[in-house]
Amino acid sequence: MTTTKERIVEATTALFMQQGYSASGLKQISEASTAPVGSLYHHFPGGKAELAAETLRRSGRAYGELVGAILDSEPDLVRAIDVAFTAAGETLRASGYADACPIATVALEVASSDEDLRVVCDEIFRGWLEMLTRRFEAGGVGRPAAADLATSFVACLEGGFLLSRVAQDTAPMAALGRSMVALVEAAVR
Amino acid sequence: MTTTKERIVEATTALFMQQGYSASGLKQISEASTAPVGSLYHHFPGGKAELAAETLRRSGRAYGELVGAILDSEPDLVRAIDVAFTAAGETLRASGYADACPIATVALEVASSDEDLRVVCDEIFRGWLEMLTRRFEAGGVGRPAAADLATSFVACLEGGFLLSRVAQDTAPMAALGRSMVALVEAAVR
Repeated sequence: MTTTKERIVEATTALFMQQGYSASGLKQISEASTAPVGSLYHHFPGGKAELAAETLRRSGRAYGELVGAILDSEPDLVRAIDVAFTAAGETLRASGYADACPIATVALEVASSDEDLRVVCDEIFRGWLEMLTRRFEAGGVGRPAAADLATSFVACLEGGFLLSRVAQDTAPMAALGRSMVALVEAAVR
Repeated sequence: MTTTKERIVEATTALFMQQGYSASGLKQISEASTAPVGSLYHHFPGGKAELAAETLRRSGRAYGELVGAILDSEPDLVRAIDVAFTAAGETLRASGYADACPIATVALEVASSDEDLRVVCDEIFRGWLEMLTRRFEAGGVGRPAAADLATSFVACLEGGFLLSRVAQDTAPMAALGRSMVALVEAAVR
């Protein structure tokens, strides 16, 4: 059973993925979630800023867990990287190149213009980078190299979303999967 | 001597870098460029859509030329990669983490919501990827690997802008420079 608050957050997550923060007004969020604007303010008394922070935190946590679960589904670290990038490409194609990272567009919009939301995005990316660094360490990579690989994983995935969405083609994401596989292979060799 | 039209495009470029497309209204662009809104419509009769397309094309071309010039400044391909990522990090820090890619934020905002501007962004990224592929080929890398390296270069640079702007720290860009150097070293070895 989905609560109204969950419906609002889910609709906001989808709009943030597809068009970012500034384009997503409360009226559109209200329509997309079939929740009246008054209901939005009931659940998020701080208005759009509070709704955005909560949406970013929830979708950031969920997306990190999704990536972690995909990586855990394959015991071999190098194959796990390939599986993760292939899955990202397939999700993009199946969704008409709309279903991508729920944080990146908003993060770029707010990094220089909204300090509160920048800090929220910073905490989300730090959490992802720590989760990925631990996984690379568990796969036998030393600490400084594992942190570099985590940063490269996030950058290649985000760059893949950017280039594949704009080109409406999974080829860039596939190329970035090959590059990440090469980096991880070199690190665990 | 800067013309009014150039001033408008420069102000729009800076706003697109810092906050993206949707947040940048004609009123703010008018103020930032010290050009009346009527002057914006004189130079861009199609309004914000035409101004955005022209700004993306001009800043995309200029940014591609800048990256090409930085790479050309160092004859050794591996060292050139290091120079380019170090320069990107230094430019970020010197500008308070505002001076980044003029295309990426807008590209993510419009990829699923504005087909005309998506196509403009697609042409820009294709131009960059071709320019970079040619440089990797000139450095002795075969065609399929050179195209993958070009994709990885753009993704790592864009991912570096994202992570470094959000963290207000050049460390992610430096880590991505190390990864790109490793990828290029492996390809030219």
